[in-house]
Amino acid sequence: MDREKLINEIQSKQTFLCIGLDSDINKIPTHLLELDDPIFEFNKAIIDATKDLCIAYKINTAFYESNGIKGWNSMQKTLDYIPHDIFTIADAKRGDIGNTSKMYAKAFFENLNFDSITVNPYMGSDSVKPFLSFDDKWVILLGLTSNVGSKDFQHLKFEDKSLYKHVFEKSSKWGNENNLMYVVGATNPEFLEEIRKIIPNHFLLVPGVGAQGGSLKDVVENGMNKECGLIVNSSRSIIYAGSELDFAIKSREAASSLQQQMASYLY
Amino acid sequence: MDREKLINEIQSKQTFLCIGLDSDINKIPTHLLELDDPIFEFNKAIIDATKDLCIAYKINTAFYESNGIKGWNSMQKTLDYIPHDIFTIADAKRGDIGNTSKMYAKAFFENLNFDSITVNPYMGSDSVKPFLSFDDKWVILLGLTSNVGSKDFQHLKFEDKSLYKHVFEKSSKWGNENNLMYVVGATNPEFLEEIRKIIPNHFLLVPGVGAQGGSLKDVVENGMNKECGLIVNSSRSIIYAGSELDFAIKSREAASSLQQQMASYLY
Repeated sequence: MDREKLINEIQSKQTFLCIGLDSDINKIPTHLLELDDPIFEFNKAIIDATKDLCIAYKINTAFYESNGIKGWNSMQKTLDYIPHDIFTIADAKRGDIGNTSKMYAKAFFENLNFDSITVNPYMGSDSVKPFLSFDDKWVILLGLTSNVGSKDFQHLKFEDKSLYKHVFEKSSKWGNENNLMYVVGATNPEFLEEIRKIIPNHFLLVPGVGAQGGSLKDVVENGMNKECGLIVNSSRSIIYAGSELDFAIKSREAASSLQQQMASYLY
Repeated sequence: MDREKLINEIQSKQTFLCIGLDSDINKIPTHLLELDDPIFEFNKAIIDATKDLCIAYKINTAFYESNGIKGWNSMQKTLDYIPHDIFTIADAKRGDIGNTSKMYAKAFFENLNFDSITVNPYMGSDSVKPFLSFDDKWVILLGLTSNVGSKDFQHLKFEDKSLYKHVFEKSSKWGNENNLMYVVGATNPEFLEEIRKIIPNHFLLVPGVGAQGGSLKDVVENGMNKECGLIVNSSRSIIYAGSELDFAIKSREAASSLQQQMASYLY
């Protein structure tokens, strides 16, 4: 999916919500467990209930890999089920030396046909660039994350500038606004404003709204640009909003509440 | 596998060689392509030909994921085929927020039963610790990598100390010598000596000897400690030593040459 199409979807659906399919066999409603592929059936119900309220689905690969071959199969079926006008994110946090990153790109962009993949910047330019050479595919680079451990290294200062700022400055030259986005944690809204000074136009994927405690209002005030420029993810607070037979209805209610807030910020 | 067992294997087999199974469907001998699972058949032949010459096999997950479900199946079969007295490494470069890292640990330590996994430090302590709570399982944390892009961030100086040194100093307190190793690229032997001042006793996984240009002698002189403390990986220069019917014999010759050099450094 290209940038223009993504912006159009945000405008027409009046939402910049991404729903994270962190689907855990130990947390999904128990009545699904008797089905052949409970994780896929769960995702299918969530997608059916929410697809008009979001512009992206994020598949957290860890939750699928933990089930081995069966999990990889659930992931593939889920991806195939997502409508083509919805942006898909492989939240895979990959990155390795060049020839290996090329293989990961092949795995997620060709074999699985995701629109985008999250990538870790620690190994530098040649670990990221192989992902940037695919038409209408995106790297979503870890910039500043929302977890406690982000303080360990991302906030270390080099020449009076934190590591994460070096990551934004340097990596923004590896790609452009049409193939590169960034992960910026919602629990750090005070940093969003500073990040926007470095990369005013890039899209940001913002996790951490909902279960992780981030506020949508703070994110919008500090991170929105004239084309929106935000994809805000919520996982657990939507997909686990209910745990009974009506779980999909509950997830729709949770997604709808966020979509309505988002619409109020879009014009 | 615990530390004592690993050291015993190095002593008794007189080798600290790890063979990287970066097995690529486009590079394996063409006569294997007519078989049902060419990648597994290739790995099986390499393992049969080299298992007395190495103490570890490293599976580069990217090469398996690029083949989707079929690739994941080849990976599982390969892992099951490796003899239990050989240390297994999932070269997966994972790492995410706590609940997700826990899922990755489950995927690689429980579902697949690897002895170890490579982990990226960028997200900090809570992204690494979930991997450290499994008995006789290991984190191999990216310290200093061997690729060109390592210069982008790993060598930035914070308070007169390179980022990679902060990574060694801080992370070595998250685990201990019995559950934590580090990746240190062989193309940077001049840094090995400095790294040994910070972590004298931890095992180091050293990729980059062979196709990537690193010298075994330099690695030994700067990185070996009294218990060896080194696992030196070679991938392409061993597994692709031949491309004909006798490819496994050629791979044995390449592995044997390295094993003999290694034996000369062990007492």
